[in-house]
Amino acid sequence: MYDTIIIGGGPAGVSAAIYAARKKLNSLLITENIGGQILETWEIENYPGFSDTTGASLAQQFTEHLQKFAVTTKNERVIDIRKTTSLHFVVKTATEEYEAKTLILAIGKKPRPLNVPGEKKFQGKGVTYCATCDGPLFANKIVAIVGSGNSGLEAVIQMEKTANQVYLIEKESKCAGDPLLLDKIKTQAKTQILNNTEIMEIYGDNFVRGAKIKNSKTNAIKNLKIDGVFVEIGGMPNTELIKDLLELNNEGKIKIDRFCQTSQEGIFACGDITDIPYEQIVIAAGEGAKAAISAFNYLAKKR
Amino acid sequence: MYDTIIIGGGPAGVSAAIYAARKKLNSLLITENIGGQILETWEIENYPGFSDTTGASLAQQFTEHLQKFAVTTKNERVIDIRKTTSLHFVVKTATEEYEAKTLILAIGKKPRPLNVPGEKKFQGKGVTYCATCDGPLFANKIVAIVGSGNSGLEAVIQMEKTANQVYLIEKESKCAGDPLLLDKIKTQAKTQILNNTEIMEIYGDNFVRGAKIKNSKTNAIKNLKIDGVFVEIGGMPNTELIKDLLELNNEGKIKIDRFCQTSQEGIFACGDITDIPYEQIVIAAGEGAKAAISAFNYLAKKR
Repeated sequence: MYDTIIIGGGPAGVSAAIYAARKKLNSLLITENIGGQILETWEIENYPGFSDTTGASLAQQFTEHLQKFAVTTKNERVIDIRKTTSLHFVVKTATEEYEAKTLILAIGKKPRPLNVPGEKKFQGKGVTYCATCDGPLFANKIVAIVGSGNSGLEAVIQMEKTANQVYLIEKESKCAGDPLLLDKIKTQAKTQILNNTEIMEIYGDNFVRGAKIKNSKTNAIKNLKIDGVFVEIGGMPNTELIKDLLELNNEGKIKIDRFCQTSQEGIFACGDITDIPYEQIVIAAGEGAKAAISAFNYLAKKR
Repeated sequence: MYDTIIIGGGPAGVSAAIYAARKKLNSLLITENIGGQILETWEIENYPGFSDTTGASLAQQFTEHLQKFAVTTKNERVIDIRKTTSLHFVVKTATEEYEAKTLILAIGKKPRPLNVPGEKKFQGKGVTYCATCDGPLFANKIVAIVGSGNSGLEAVIQMEKTANQVYLIEKESKCAGDPLLLDKIKTQAKTQILNNTEIMEIYGDNFVRGAKIKNSKTNAIKNLKIDGVFVEIGGMPNTELIKDLLELNNEGKIKIDRFCQTSQEGIFACGDITDIPYEQIVIAAGEGAKAAISAFNYLAKKR
C-alpha cells in the first residue's frame, strides 16, 4: 500500500515525485517515460535557471533528480484506475496492480495534430505546437499559424513582432477567437489572414520550406513558402482513464481547486491534464509541487 | 511608457521577466536584488532539474537567464505605486518615476522572525524558516519546531520520519493548528510537545547546538540541546506599498484568480505575496510565468 502513486513523468509528475520523496511519502511513479511532452521539444529557453537547454537534456536532468531521491519508478502504461470500497485506489498496468491511499494524476495532454503528410516528419524542424515556447526561434522567418481560437490569435500577435511574415490559416470563413484580438491582427502590417484555407501537406528539406494549401471554396491548391507551422488547434487531454471518476471541464480537463484537489477526495491532479491556464514546463512543475504538498497534508490529517 | 513593470526579483519576478521578454513586451524589472528569498537559502535540492545547488548559484543562473533576453533591470527600491487618471501605473523609486500599462507584482514576503539573540547569526546554520525546503537536511538530528499553526504541525509530522528527536515549541498553553494533526503528533514516538514555552536565545559554534528556553508559567529557564530550529510562526508579506490599491486577504496577501489577476485591472501578482498555497521556488516561478502570459493577453486585447 503506497501513500501515493504519481501517474505521468512530465514536468508535473517529476516535480510531484521529488516533493513526495522529500516529504518521505512511500510513493511510486508510474510513467512510460521521464520528460513527457518535453521529449518532443527541441530548444528550451524559458525554464528559469536553464537559459538554453534541450528537451532531451532537461529530461536527463529530471531523471538524475529522481535518482537522487531514489524515487521508485515503473516504466509502464496505466490501463485502469479504480476506487476500492475502503476508499483506496487501485492502479492497473498490463502486468501489475498497485494500491495507494492517494493518487497524483499528471497524465498531461497531447496537442491535437493536423494529420497531414509531412507534419510528423518536420516536428521539431519547423512544425511546432507551442508558440509561447518556440515562437522566439522563428525571428526573421515566414510562419503560418493554423487555428484562429485565442491561442492562435495570440500566437499571431506575438509573431508579428519578430517574424518577417505571418499567415493566419483558418479553415472556416470566420475566425473563432476574441473580436478584440482579431481587430488588432487586422492592423498588423506583416500578417495576412487566410480564411477558408486548409493545409494539405507540409514539405521541406532538413527543415520546413513550404505547405500546400487548399481554398475550400474554390478548391484551388497553391504552394505557400513558409519556414514554420504553428499548430494551434487545441489539445487532447489524456482523460480516457479517469472520465468516470472525476469531474472534467468542457475541454475534458480535470477540474482542480488551488490546492490541486480534484472532485474526488484523495485524488490530486497537476499540469496540462488540469483546467489551469497555460501549458508551460515551469507552470506544470510548480503545480506538481502543489499537488504533492497537498497529498502530504491530506495524509497527515488521516488517522 | 512600458508595457509592463515587474517589481521584485525573486523566482516569481525572474520568471515573469523571462516570459515578458520572450513575448517581446517592452518591460522593466525593478528589484533590489536577483534571487529574493533564495539568497537566504543555503542548499536547494527541490527545484526540479537542479538536484543539488545553492541559493547563490541559482540566483546566478537566474541572472544569466535575464541577461540572455536583455531584460532591462533597475536595482532600486520601489517607494510608491499609484494609478494615473489614464489608467496607467506610476512606479516611483528614490531617484526616478516609471510609467507602465500593466504591473506584475512579485514583491514576496519575509518569514516572521523570533527576534531572539543568535537567530540571525545561525540563519542558514541551523536556523531555518522552511521545513519543506530544509527539513531533509536534518536527518538523524535533534530539531525544534517553533509555532503550532498548521505549517508548524506539518513540519513536526515531516521531521518525525527522519530526525532523531523533535520538539514542538509553543508559547501558548494550547496548540493552534488542526486537532487532527495534533492527535497524530501526540502518537509520534520521537516528538515532545512543549507548551507555555518560549525560546530566549539560540547558541552554538559553527552551527546551532542548543537553545535557552523559558517556561512562561514557572519562569524556569533551561538549556535544550538541539541541532536545528524551524521557525514556523508565519510570514510578513511586503504589502505596505499596495494595501490601498488592491484587495488583500486576512494575512495581508494579495488575492488573485487563477490567471494571477488582482482586484485591479492591469495589475497582476505572483509568488509569495499572493494568496496561493505553499511557498516554494518552483511554485513561485510557475506563477510568474502565468502572470506574464496574462499581462501579454491583457495587452493584446487593448486597442
